[in-house]
Amino acid sequence: MSEPARALVPSPVRIIGAGLIGGSLGLALSEAGVAVQVEDISPGTTALAVEMGVGSRADENAEAPALVLVAAPPDVTAEVVDRALRTWPEAIVADVASVRGAVLQRLREIARPEDLPRYIGAHPMAGREVSGVIAAQGDLFRGRPFVVVPHARTRSDALAVLRALGTELGSVVSVMDADAHDLAVAHVSHVPQVVASALAASLLEPDAAALDLAGQGVRDATRIADSDPRLWVEILCANGPAIAPVLARVRDRIDAVARALETTGEGAPRRTVAQTIADGNRGVRRVPGKHGGASDDFATLIVVIPDRPGALARLLLAVEEAGVNLEDLRLEHALGRKVGLAHVAVAQEHEERLTCELLERGWTVAGR
Amino acid sequence: MSEPARALVPSPVRIIGAGLIGGSLGLALSEAGVAVQVEDISPGTTALAVEMGVGSRADENAEAPALVLVAAPPDVTAEVVDRALRTWPEAIVADVASVRGAVLQRLREIARPEDLPRYIGAHPMAGREVSGVIAAQGDLFRGRPFVVVPHARTRSDALAVLRALGTELGSVVSVMDADAHDLAVAHVSHVPQVVASALAASLLEPDAAALDLAGQGVRDATRIADSDPRLWVEILCANGPAIAPVLARVRDRIDAVARALETTGEGAPRRTVAQTIADGNRGVRRVPGKHGGASDDFATLIVVIPDRPGALARLLLAVEEAGVNLEDLRLEHALGRKVGLAHVAVAQEHEERLTCELLERGWTVAGR
Repeated sequence: MSEPARALVPSPVRIIGAGLIGGSLGLALSEAGVAVQVEDISPGTTALAVEMGVGSRADENAEAPALVLVAAPPDVTAEVVDRALRTWPEAIVADVASVRGAVLQRLREIARPEDLPRYIGAHPMAGREVSGVIAAQGDLFRGRPFVVVPHARTRSDALAVLRALGTELGSVVSVMDADAHDLAVAHVSHVPQVVASALAASLLEPDAAALDLAGQGVRDATRIADSDPRLWVEILCANGPAIAPVLARVRDRIDAVARALETTGEGAPRRTVAQTIADGNRGVRRVPGKHGGASDDFATLIVVIPDRPGALARLLLAVEEAGVNLEDLRLEHALGRKVGLAHVAVAQEHEERLTCELLERGWTVAGR
Repeated sequence: MSEPARALVPSPVRIIGAGLIGGSLGLALSEAGVAVQVEDISPGTTALAVEMGVGSRADENAEAPALVLVAAPPDVTAEVVDRALRTWPEAIVADVASVRGAVLQRLREIARPEDLPRYIGAHPMAGREVSGVIAAQGDLFRGRPFVVVPHARTRSDALAVLRALGTELGSVVSVMDADAHDLAVAHVSHVPQVVASALAASLLEPDAAALDLAGQGVRDATRIADSDPRLWVEILCANGPAIAPVLARVRDRIDAVARALETTGEGAPRRTVAQTIADGNRGVRRVPGKHGGASDDFATLIVVIPDRPGALARLLLAVEEAGVNLEDLRLEHALGRKVGLAHVAVAQEHEERLTCELLERGWTVAGR
């Protein structure tokens, strides 16, 4: 009890739903010394969770929880939260569903009004497209956004407890209301998922020889299209009202370019195309970089990596010996190439010195 | 003249247009011992190219070229090719514009029919969004696709010379007709560019707090949106007929999801959403992986990297000492996190052993 953050997460914590998220929450809290009880609708899953150290089995004799974390599937979340509020009249009850408005709306229909001040939402953003308690890990939320989502009548102690939970998990805690949260995840997660999937679906059309020309660009643009349809149907349908208008505007931009490219002649078509590319430039540059810095702070060197074991490790040792901190690293592949290209991002002020040091050591550093 | 590939690239080679592509071609051929003459419409650019070693200045007394490579801007390419065909009646003339059909169509209008068998197109796919001879590098095309694009009347010796050129550059050479080429690059390059730009433009809408929730997914999906509008307007407008229908189908898929998400109730909306995600799964899995292998051949471990200089290098040394070849590496960042996550791709059969070895050495290897 010596750490202030832990002192604010009350014991015991009851976790309802032992999937990836519930299991990872339990592992993290158990490791931090919090008493965790775990239950799942599946007895087999509960047994596995207990065996993995997620928490103790929540039987009838278990102490009443001070905090309940509902990590059930989104379509039953509100009902499970309501039951918890009624069962434990002193407990703070939070759910960790990834979409907030639908749960809150349903709860306002079914929960007793006097119970709602003890209810609060949270979204630990794990960003992992796997599921099941077997994949749980205590550090799943470390360094990730943890959005606490109170409603108008949430009690201040509930807000404080959820903030403390996020801190205990090692997450970056922020607070938003349900509408702001749902719109934010529509923008940074749900709309990109749909657009990447639609783009990737267009790769069903060309023949294999065409796909052999694919470079890093289309690979990056479609990477998240390799996601679980069942999981994403639930998420997207639960956040439909926030997603649909944003998605419709992306559709309209694509439509405008498609129509412009159908038009022959000068003038308007080029303006539409140029404006779309320029707007994309400005949009992508708004995304914060590592540690919140703008990505403009970094310079990227492109270094040729021979396709031999350990070549990349030797490059990174050379970077370290130059006393330069690596801010980002990306490997670039292309069909049949016998060398790789490493895109090494470093602080702007180190670019020139690192280039010289690498050249001196015999590395091929490509121009940008 | 001892290497067979070089023997097939005839000397001298005249390069017209000393930008990134023309300059890089000249550097590569000069390094290979081919006599290169270089000219550019700008005397300053020509002087810089000569100084950089792209080739010798092409003055009036220069020997007539055996091969002319036109690396001029796309809107003047056909006119420059036609002039070269008329000026040097023995030379093979190739251009390296990134879109083929428009150039060929224009040439059929303006060139003398008897000159056309000496004409052939090529597309060295550099995939670098910088320009100017100052960025030229002799290895720009190494390991990259080099598409040779003959037309119906191209002479077989012109085809052989262009194949030899691609081999000399260290590229992966393939042969396609103009329509197949233009459709292929529409699919793997031009449509992804427009879609990524339109998606990135939607990031102009949310506030900064929303963008703080951005993870690696939206970063990857929008990376190529940071491209030069001037360059892309030329490329997209030149390939409009191939791009527009593909882009329209991506628009239709996005439209279907947007409409489904506006619809309340069960049934049809979920089917549309699930189908789009599932089609995206199948599409993205068609893209060949490194060395042409399918990405399904690899397993990915997620390893926690402390944010200290050299940590990644130590991880890669550990991978090397385990005797495992690294197939791919991606670093994952998120706001404020004090650790990074390295996604380490290795052959499936090495997954379990490498996991054990890394765990034994004290690395944190996350479940997937």
